[in-house]
Amino acid sequence: MNAPMADPMLTLYGESFASRLLLGTAGYPSPDILARAAKASGAEILTVSLRRESARQRTGQGFWQLVEELDLKLLPNTAGCHSPKEAIATAQMARELFGTDWIKLEVIGNDDTLQPDLFGLVEAAKALSEEGFKILPYCTEDLSAAERLVAAGCEVLMPWGSPIGSACGLSNRPGLKALRAYFPDIPLIVDAGIGAPSHAAEAMELGYDGVLLNTAVAKAGDPVAMAAAFGKAIEAGHQAFAAGLMEPQDMASPSTPMAGTPFAGSGRVS
Amino acid sequence: MNAPMADPMLTLYGESFASRLLLGTAGYPSPDILARAAKASGAEILTVSLRRESARQRTGQGFWQLVEELDLKLLPNTAGCHSPKEAIATAQMARELFGTDWIKLEVIGNDDTLQPDLFGLVEAAKALSEEGFKILPYCTEDLSAAERLVAAGCEVLMPWGSPIGSACGLSNRPGLKALRAYFPDIPLIVDAGIGAPSHAAEAMELGYDGVLLNTAVAKAGDPVAMAAAFGKAIEAGHQAFAAGLMEPQDMASPSTPMAGTPFAGSGRVS
Amino acid sequence: MNAPMADPMLTLYGESFASRLLLGTAGYPSPDILARAAKASGAEILTVSLRRESARQRTGQGFWQLVEELDLKLLPNTAGCHSPKEAIATAQMARELFGTDWIKLEVIGNDDTLQPDLFGLVEAAKALSEEGFKILPYCTEDLSAAERLVAAGCEVLMPWGSPIGSACGLSNRPGLKALRAYFPDIPLIVDAGIGAPSHAAEAMELGYDGVLLNTAVAKAGDPVAMAAAFGKAIEAGHQAFAAGLMEPQDMASPSTPMAGTPFAGSGRVS
Amino acid sequence: MNAPMADPMLTLYGESFASRLLLGTAGYPSPDILARAAKASGAEILTVSLRRESARQRTGQGFWQLVEELDLKLLPNTAGCHSPKEAIATAQMARELFGTDWIKLEVIGNDDTLQPDLFGLVEAAKALSEEGFKILPYCTEDLSAAERLVAAGCEVLMPWGSPIGSACGLSNRPGLKALRAYFPDIPLIVDAGIGAPSHAAEAMELGYDGVLLNTAVAKAGDPVAMAAAFGKAIEAGHQAFAAGLMEPQDMASPSTPMAGTPFAGSGRVS
Repeated sequence: MNAPMADPMLTLYGESFASRLLLGTAGYPSPDILARAAKASGAEILTVSLRRESARQRTGQGFWQLVEELDLKLLPNTAGCHSPKEAIATAQMARELFGTDWIKLEVIGNDDTLQPDLFGLVEAAKALSEEGFKILPYCTEDLSAAERLVAAGCEVLMPWGSPIGSACGLSNRPGLKALRAYFPDIPLIVDAGIGAPSHAAEAMELGYDGVLLNTAVAKAGDPVAMAAAFGKAIEAGHQAFAAGLMEPQDMASPSTPMAGTPFAGSGRVS
Repeated sequence: MNAPMADPMLTLYGESFASRLLLGTAGYPSPDILARAAKASGAEILTVSLRRESARQRTGQGFWQLVEELDLKLLPNTAGCHSPKEAIATAQMARELFGTDWIKLEVIGNDDTLQPDLFGLVEAAKALSEEGFKILPYCTEDLSAAERLVAAGCEVLMPWGSPIGSACGLSNRPGLKALRAYFPDIPLIVDAGIGAPSHAAEAMELGYDGVLLNTAVAKAGDPVAMAAAFGKAIEAGHQAFAAGLMEPQDMASPSTPMAGTPFAGSGRVS
Repeated sequence: MNAPMADPMLTLYGESFASRLLLGTAGYPSPDILARAAKASGAEILTVSLRRESARQRTGQGFWQLVEELDLKLLPNTAGCHSPKEAIATAQMARELFGTDWIKLEVIGNDDTLQPDLFGLVEAAKALSEEGFKILPYCTEDLSAAERLVAAGCEVLMPWGSPIGSACGLSNRPGLKALRAYFPDIPLIVDAGIGAPSHAAEAMELGYDGVLLNTAVAKAGDPVAMAAAFGKAIEAGHQAFAAGLMEPQDMASPSTPMAGTPFAGSGRVS
Repeated sequence: MNAPMADPMLTLYGESFASRLLLGTAGYPSPDILARAAKASGAEILTVSLRRESARQRTGQGFWQLVEELDLKLLPNTAGCHSPKEAIATAQMARELFGTDWIKLEVIGNDDTLQPDLFGLVEAAKALSEEGFKILPYCTEDLSAAERLVAAGCEVLMPWGSPIGSACGLSNRPGLKALRAYFPDIPLIVDAGIGAPSHAAEAMELGYDGVLLNTAVAKAGDPVAMAAAFGKAIEAGHQAFAAGLMEPQDMASPSTPMAGTPFAGSGRVS
């Protein structure tokens, strides 16, 4: 039993979570399905959008009851904000409304790809950090932005896998690997673009600490089953990373090479 | 609850299994680790190699006790056989020794890649089928071999993902998709080349019915934890396929497009 | 000038060709465009389909005049044949009609993917080889079929890159690399699935000896310009393979690492 | 002859070039090989590094003679600069030394990946633009940096394909495609990471306007032949883009579908 163990908990800003899946709450067929999907996923953190109106009006009473029952942490986001100023104002409103200084910070540079505006993001992160916010920035794999976000006080980074809602998975694996290599001690969460459990597992197998999902669950044929599937895949990827994955081999090698000596390094197998 | 449900059982030759993971037994650090990995994986079918000696000598008493305790099905294979004649003889011996007419049929054409010899495979499958064997052929995504194997009586096909032991995952996705499309009613199991849980999940997301693993578990830093991870990933991929995965989108679309109308098609969201 | 040189000629069955592009003749907007595309491509071998009627009726007088003027070699094919018997009969007719014992041998196993029937292909190759045909078999990357084709007397192999007309490029790179590695002395030509000059260049960079194209040129917006583009890309890939390509590096290394010592191994740079 | 024609010229800051290959000058085995590679490539623009010493000392007399003979344009770069300040000073020195206001602007954020520091890059671009420099910025596919570079007066963008010297090709195809889509009127040149002619052709097939190379040529077994190969591949990719590439097809379609009617839409083919 002296095998390596995966860290069972995801720790962000001093709070620990048993689940490494963060779930978005937009675009579900109904509040009830959202509530059941959240439960099936095992997520302990739900993102909620605040833009232009109060959250309670937007998402229905059933959802909020579930949130209370499940003791889930709400992570307000600044989705739809196109400037630091707008994002900062939205974050401040969210703090009032939700009573939390956690904020998923989005500053969108482009309405079609929803790619972050790295420059506006860093500016907003600096300002919000000074106001004591605990920022989870939606960024990219860009190292120069990552360094500035960490310098601004971000204790976690959330690079995209591919454009929001694209379901394309990890478009730039080498870039995500480099980000992981350069920030070994910062929790990294892939946020956006994940379309299938295999994508989420792959992110975890690269050593990422978590995955934030929304569209792939909300738009699935059966969001509740899909949420459960993602929950398992993220656990699987995390556990596999800790258990020590094989490197891909260029040339094949037999898995049953030596009949008679099935156990490596053992002359005595009876 | 009228959402689509994944078929919970894998049915092969009239027998049903709750797990869709088949586990190989070669190359583990010890019989004990093999036994614990098998248990952690949830696998109900274990492949065993017979070549040139009796199975009991090869794998140790501890393993066989576990097999009996766990009520696992043993699937003998013809690993290492290079001709139909050799494979047929090995299958016959295996039937005697293990008391089963199930056989994982391997006829290896190449010692380095361990690629199946499709011609020898079809020949051996015809002969063994006439003798009443229930054949699980290790093949490739080749449609012309697949047709002949099915015509020979194979009720399941086991194409490789990539060369045995390579850990490269699915080298030819389009080929595996075509095989799935042309044999919608034949159980298809990816056998060989799977290196990570994300690979296994991806096979299931393509609609495959199961995954057969060996090296990626046996050679993991922690085979027991890795076995558990694969078990979860295969469940996740299967469940996600049934739940209806999104198609990847060429252009990004926002996941929080319409603040104020978070639930599609609903004017009333309170 | 003592640098390694690419073999300038492609030699097939003792005949040498300066161009490594083989061009198909189906599906062009007009015979004139086909003729001009053939010329622009630099191809010295054109495939022609024989099925069910005489070639002269099918392709127009202008094309044949060009063939005569350009001194191109015609390579009849057995496109559309679904059985060895049909393919053999078609090859025999082609020999009569075109006065050549060269034949591009296709035995199609599947009408949608147009994947070769490897079993029928080997059977037809054996029969035609005994009749003295010089066979260029349309096959896949499968090693067990390749061995039997070579044993049957084929002096060249033409594996698909991906399904005919799909324009998907090289669907199974590892498989194509393995085929190259196991048949270092057999000319290998990628036939089918090439959609862009980059695909053709990549095949050549893997050490392939040539590329056979049809749809990507015939269905291009401007087939003549596209033919010229493919001609250049195939030359480029061949030349690059011979010139010694860099291996991709996992970690970046600077291309201008040492200001002041721009020339490796040189202390004197003035 | 009314087919679409590729724009034969690459126009940057009002100057036109027949070649779309830009060649770096670092790391060649000798000045002579560099000179011959430059000639073989057809490049009309050569980048030169200035850092810490005069160019003439660095590269040898033979190279400069060739530059004068071939009438090549020199593009000084700021390779190795880690801050806007350093890059600005280097650009100013380069203007003196080379008598040109063109500058390839590099501000490196990371010594291992040599990824640009997007923030420093934009800052330096603003400052140099005000001084009248014609800036060719080494950037990434990031849209938010691209917008600021264009706003700062850059009339061309040079995103990396993958890390400098990695030979990995296009690591983030979707990102490069998005950049192309969002800046249809800005010349875009892939700079860095190109390892093979197929990579360069692919960049051009995505609609890019040029490719800047160094390591893949300098470190080739035969740099002169490799330079020639890249020259052809870039032409091929550019021509193919203009000629209208087929879209990859999910399902195969026959390229010789209708024997007897080889020319689309033509009842009369004699």
